Formats: sequence, C-alpha cells, structure tokens
Amino acid sequence: MLTDPKTSPDFANGGGLLPAIAQDAETGEVLMMAYMNAEAWAETLKTGQAVYYSRGRQKLWRKGEQSGNVQQVRAVYLDCDRDTILLRVHQLGDAACHKGYRSCFYRQVTPEGLKVVGQRVFDPDEVYGKNAEE
Amino acid sequence: MLTDPKTSPDFANGGGLLPAIAQDAETGEVLMMAYMNAEAWAETLKTGQAVYYSRGRQKLWRKGEQSGNVQQVRAVYLDCDRDTILLRVHQLGDAACHKGYRSCFYRQVTPEGLKVVGQRVFDPDEVYGKNAEE
Repeated sequence: MLTDPKTSPDFANGGGLLPAIAQDAETGEVLMMAYMNAEAWAETLKTGQAVYYSRGRQKLWRKGEQSGNVQQVRAVYLDCDRDTILLRVHQLGDAACHKGYRSCFYRQVTPEGLKVVGQRVFDPDEVYGKNAEE
Repeated sequence: MLTDPKTSPDFANGGGLLPAIAQDAETGEVLMMAYMNAEAWAETLKTGQAVYYSRGRQKLWRKGEQSGNVQQVRAVYLDCDRDTILLRVHQLGDAACHKGYRSCFYRQVTPEGLKVVGQRVFDPDEVYGKNAEE
C-alpha cells in the first residue's frame, strides 16, 4: 500500500509536505494540524502513533515524545485530491497543544477579538521548561 | 479585529495562504480543508459564508457558488500559532466534496488500500458537467 502511488498521499504535489489534521476519535474535536512528509507518513502507519514533520526544526516530530502526549492512531483518511490527511486519534495526556490546551484551536474569533474558549490542561513551563516548544 | 495583527491569522508566515479546516458544526465531521488568503478570510467574516482561495484557479473561491453547497459559518477558531483556521459550518446541500461525498475524507487507508467509507450524496457530472471541478 505504501508504495502504490494511487493509494498514497500525493507528497509530490505538496512539495514534499502535506497537511495532516488530528481529530479526537472519541469526541470529534479537531485537536491540531501539522505536516507530514513521506517518512512521517510511513512512520505513522508503522508505529500506530502520529509522527509529523516539524517545519521549524526540519526533522521528524514524534508527537508526545517529550510531553508524553502521544496520539494513538485509530483511523486514517485521505481527501479527494490525496493532498490532505485526516487522523482520528486517541489523545494521551488530554492535551494536543504545546500551550497546554486540549486542542490547538482554543481561541475563537469574535467581534471583540480572540476569546479563549478551550480549557488549559497543563502548564507548558512545567512540561517543557521555559522557552521550549514541542 | 481584522486589522489587528495580534488577533488575525498570520498570513505573512504562511506565504499569503493558510490552511482552513471546515468541520460540520452539528456532527463534528471534518468536511474538507482548503486555503484562505487575507481577502478570503475577510470575505468569510463579512459574509458569514466560507470563502477560500483556489490555488488551482488562483482566485477567490466562494464555496457553493456553482453547486449550491454553501457553508454557513457558525464559529471561527485560530490555532496556537495563528497559522491554521478552523471553521465550524452548517453545510448546505449535504455535500462538501466536489466528488459528491459529504466529506472530502471519504476514503479510509486500510492494509488493503483505500476503502470508500463515505456516502455519495450527488453525482458530480450532473452538478458540474463532465470534467468540471469546484
């Protein structure tokens, strides 16, 4: 399956990187969006845990490696153009976001500006140390 | 709000285009992912209907303009880095995908290859004509 171009993500069309959406398999909440290259995709399918490619650090990003907030992959989908990936995951540690929120989409756009609507699960300073990022 | 750089999507960081995820506001189903530029973002907030930027056609894409499958925006969220947009929408016409499925993510990745798991709502040939695309 991994080597069949007709059933794999079209990484060539995405310049080597494609967006991958992580959705909570139990609640349907959209947790985050990150990028995968072909290696991250292969590692995700092989390990059953979400592996992304960090554009900032330019290397594979095994989600939760530092924080423990691993995403166990329950199901994987491709969109019509095979250039976006959807993962349905079981989120360990209750938080996908490095800011300590369950979902990275914890701020709603309102006429008064951004409003925090998500619940903070952990203090990122305690998990990563100050100025660190996952 | 639209002109405040601290509360707007960071289009500069995305090379002018940022991914926008459309999620069904009622069911939580992830319907599609497309891109927005600053103009599409402004039009979406102004009209209350999802407006994207078509990379293929290089112009604004008023979702549903041809098919009638308009997305009425119920809520808008930004992620932690302000480089991904999440829309919760009411999907008119029951289908977000130009292939006639409710969600663009109608194919699951299985050990045997891609498996269609979504229900087809309409025949795209009848809506767009042959060889057309939305």
